[in-house]
Amino acid sequence: MTTEQSHDALEGQFERARKDYADLAARGLSLDLTRGKPAPEQLDLSEALLGLPGDTHTAADGTDVRNYGGLQGLPELREIFAGVLQTPVGQLLALGNSSLELMHDSIVHALLGVLPGSERRWADEERIAFLCPVPGYDRHFALCERFGIEMIPVAMTPEGPDMDEVERLAAQDPAVKGIWCVPKYSNPDGVSYSDETVARLAAMPTAAPDFRIFWDNAYAAHHLTDEPVEIADVLAACADSGNPDRVFVFGSSSKITFAGSGVAFFGSSPANVKWLLANNSKRSIGPDKVNQLRHALFLRDEAGVRAHMDRQRDLLRPKFDAVQRILEAELGGTGLATWTEPKGGYFVTLRVQDGCAKEVVRRAAEAGIVLTPAGATHPYGDDPDDATIRIAPSYPGQEDLEQAMHGLTVCVRLVGIEKQLKG
Amino acid sequence: MTTEQSHDALEGQFERARKDYADLAARGLSLDLTRGKPAPEQLDLSEALLGLPGDTHTAADGTDVRNYGGLQGLPELREIFAGVLQTPVGQLLALGNSSLELMHDSIVHALLGVLPGSERRWADEERIAFLCPVPGYDRHFALCERFGIEMIPVAMTPEGPDMDEVERLAAQDPAVKGIWCVPKYSNPDGVSYSDETVARLAAMPTAAPDFRIFWDNAYAAHHLTDEPVEIADVLAACADSGNPDRVFVFGSSSKITFAGSGVAFFGSSPANVKWLLANNSKRSIGPDKVNQLRHALFLRDEAGVRAHMDRQRDLLRPKFDAVQRILEAELGGTGLATWTEPKGGYFVTLRVQDGCAKEVVRRAAEAGIVLTPAGATHPYGDDPDDATIRIAPSYPGQEDLEQAMHGLTVCVRLVGIEKQLKG
Repeated sequence: MTTEQSHDALEGQFERARKDYADLAARGLSLDLTRGKPAPEQLDLSEALLGLPGDTHTAADGTDVRNYGGLQGLPELREIFAGVLQTPVGQLLALGNSSLELMHDSIVHALLGVLPGSERRWADEERIAFLCPVPGYDRHFALCERFGIEMIPVAMTPEGPDMDEVERLAAQDPAVKGIWCVPKYSNPDGVSYSDETVARLAAMPTAAPDFRIFWDNAYAAHHLTDEPVEIADVLAACADSGNPDRVFVFGSSSKITFAGSGVAFFGSSPANVKWLLANNSKRSIGPDKVNQLRHALFLRDEAGVRAHMDRQRDLLRPKFDAVQRILEAELGGTGLATWTEPKGGYFVTLRVQDGCAKEVVRRAAEAGIVLTPAGATHPYGDDPDDATIRIAPSYPGQEDLEQAMHGLTVCVRLVGIEKQLKG
Repeated sequence: MTTEQSHDALEGQFERARKDYADLAARGLSLDLTRGKPAPEQLDLSEALLGLPGDTHTAADGTDVRNYGGLQGLPELREIFAGVLQTPVGQLLALGNSSLELMHDSIVHALLGVLPGSERRWADEERIAFLCPVPGYDRHFALCERFGIEMIPVAMTPEGPDMDEVERLAAQDPAVKGIWCVPKYSNPDGVSYSDETVARLAAMPTAAPDFRIFWDNAYAAHHLTDEPVEIADVLAACADSGNPDRVFVFGSSSKITFAGSGVAFFGSSPANVKWLLANNSKRSIGPDKVNQLRHALFLRDEAGVRAHMDRQRDLLRPKFDAVQRILEAELGGTGLATWTEPKGGYFVTLRVQDGCAKEVVRRAAEAGIVLTPAGATHPYGDDPDDATIRIAPSYPGQEDLEQAMHGLTVCVRLVGIEKQLKG
């Protein structure tokens, strides 16, 4: 095909994309693919929680869950999640309704108190920086921004963050105090860390004696296939490497039971757990133990969590399948985009041509399809390639999702072909 | 009576006290008057909460309470508590399970962010001080200590804190950024602030432009008599005085429904509410709205809260009556102690002779009666007179309480008469 023929072909494609976009806009859609929220049918799976604990208020050890106390959380619930979160039950705390809160508070306590291994409060350091694998989770970045913590982006690979880069930065710069990790089915790429990545994170030398891995294991049990991914045990790896205090493990039942009314967990070394408890003891007279008993009665044991997550998978799988099917049908072989095929978690990452993500999101919004803002997957909202779009398929109904995905591919074609014509 | 006769009489009293103490110790008691915890029968009053919300998960405005979102909290629950906490519903937030957390977090956000009216973050000030009416609540003092906030004691009067002193300190020292207030049925004195005290707090000039009253209205609805005390509306008073951002109002249902599983509230000016919401939005994707719906369905309306608190009063009143009866019978007219007669709240303050409180608490512990450590009612655990003992009558059963109170009076006689003999 000559250049001229090729140009004519592109013009034709652009014309079709313009027509498709006009049709799309004319439909007056109002669809939302922004946030990783469970759909109502997923929440229905936990409807029994609404009537629990029912006629009991007594924990397995005889504690009256209605009264004050119990800073560590209910033992029977910690027992259920110890396996899920790969944390010995004695080092796992069951706390409030949000793991994001626990990450926030861990930073606060490190800023205003002294971490095990710290020489001083982080607030008294001249500069604090965190390594931020990109693309990543916007709420992690928002915490850094809020507390004036500098963010250093590190590229993600199919094995996890680029460990050569992570090791280099952690070893040379004592201001680098932490790294954000979503180690399983990462937000938004769906990447799971390889055993080697976990081992290197645990063992690498760090210039800061109080370096912390913020291990946000948000999707520990959130499989989409029949072959659940298992990741290495980071707490054990850190201990084995002589860095027992290096990692804070976070998790929650937010995307297992109810998104706003679940239970969040913190797991770490004995020294870190003691440190968090000492800080929490000034702040609280104990977590909501009734809600913890409610969850223990509902989930019963680790097998109960797994069975429940199978039911979640049955609801989510058709949505993720539709995303793949539509992307492949509409964009496959066009060279206009690539995308991830996650085996779990809540997101698909769509990578469009450089310089096109913002415009695709803008065009989609104009046609009534709201997407996470382009750039949200990067520190300071700045995706230097302007290429990453996060897709959250969980919340919309199947038909809405499919409409939104069709519409999104129209926008990708419109913006991408226009760019090729201009380029 | 000659001095010698008087001395002989004292010797006789001391002998009786020693014998009574020996009898007490021989009984091998194990009783606890330390913390303001509701008794199981009080918690039973809210047993219906354990099965709620039951078969609904929808708030009055149609919100699915099981999912993320709703940073301000459920409107129908805020509506119920707006009157109780004297805060317009639009300026009242319903949040987590603990008002202590909200006080902690308000200090954190003021340290690490910039308050409305602040020139800089409190963390960047050379010195921060809070006025601490004494006797006061040990958990307030613990927060100050944890964050390196200097505590300046101010004496309580029957009208609230000594306002001449408060005004003087607030006006002269720009490091004075706040004051702790438990304005109704204060912990531990049971004092309620007079209208004049509230007006002066609201109107007084402060050297710090970002001075805040931490208004811990923990016992807003916790009356012990048929004549509920009403205090002045501090938010309105501050607004009327041209200091609308001066006060943070805190409250919770911890001692209304379940002590660990209630709902906490924050009320303030529109600017302060906006400030807290902006901070919370980085930390959380919303409070536990299922628990808020549960509480709204259970309490129904403000009248429902009042009726519920009447039932609480019926359980607490006999305990507080027993405390008064036993103190009067055993110590009345002896000159060995004075005590408060609260009309609400959770505590009675026993004031023994100067220099005797620690020894009374020690002797009581040896006889199996655990009291709040002497000094806990003062900043840094230091009661300069060593005279204040906090009594928390709510948790023990009636018989245990009466035994503990009898035992306590034996200790007061033993220690007090010994001191008179030596003096």
